[in-house]
Amino acid sequence: MSSGQLEVLSTDECLRLLGQAKVGRVGVTVGALPEIFPVVYCLFDGAIAFRTGEGTKLHAAIRRAVLAFEVDDFDAEVQHGWSVLVVGHAGEVTDPMQVNAARRLLSDTWVPGDRYHVVSIALDRVTGRRITERD
Amino acid sequence: MSSGQLEVLSTDECLRLLGQAKVGRVGVTVGALPEIFPVVYCLFDGAIAFRTGEGTKLHAAIRRAVLAFEVDDFDAEVQHGWSVLVVGHAGEVTDPMQVNAARRLLSDTWVPGDRYHVVSIALDRVTGRRITERD
Repeated sequence: MSSGQLEVLSTDECLRLLGQAKVGRVGVTVGALPEIFPVVYCLFDGAIAFRTGEGTKLHAAIRRAVLAFEVDDFDAEVQHGWSVLVVGHAGEVTDPMQVNAARRLLSDTWVPGDRYHVVSIALDRVTGRRITERD
Repeated sequence: MSSGQLEVLSTDECLRLLGQAKVGRVGVTVGALPEIFPVVYCLFDGAIAFRTGEGTKLHAAIRRAVLAFEVDDFDAEVQHGWSVLVVGHAGEVTDPMQVNAARRLLSDTWVPGDRYHVVSIALDRVTGRRITERD
């Protein structure tokens, strides 16, 4: 079995892929330890947006921490896939009209729990890679 | 649309799911900024193991950083899924026989790049959740 080819994705292609996926993962630091949480997200007002309750992710947003956000789609059977990484400042969306607009975009009503807050992650740095089959 | 039910998974169930998946994500801190990298992994000698080249993940392992490792399988269409989070000390596997054994277990020859090193993440803390449909 030969290895595939690694393609560095353009920012435009990263944004297209970010607009397609629905579930991503947020990387935060909790008490000096790293954690990764899956979230249902959308692109809203030029940023990643997701809903959350009172907790780690909201606290990171309130203190405007820099968070990592990742989406990917790999298939180990067919042996290719892609990943996009966003690193950017988090913030809480507080304007009521914007909160309502973001909630309407988020198809996450199936995720249990009270998640009244909307957190955004700015697209400060967007990078991506794709592994394709070797010709 | 009503929200699903959140189930906290037992350690045994988390380990079973960790044994099934092939691609996970490692959370590291690079120059004070968080990053998330997808990796092909296996369970080896009671730890997460993956191959890597010279770089961020190897350096984290050599300095025995605490890393986050996450696997999940969510389907936004059918609206359920699960995630497992491992937080543990990283280390480089250096014994040649162990390196060879781990490499044999890792079905990642399709991932391009020179990745001669094997990094392990101890299962210091293993937690998981599942979202199921409400009855």
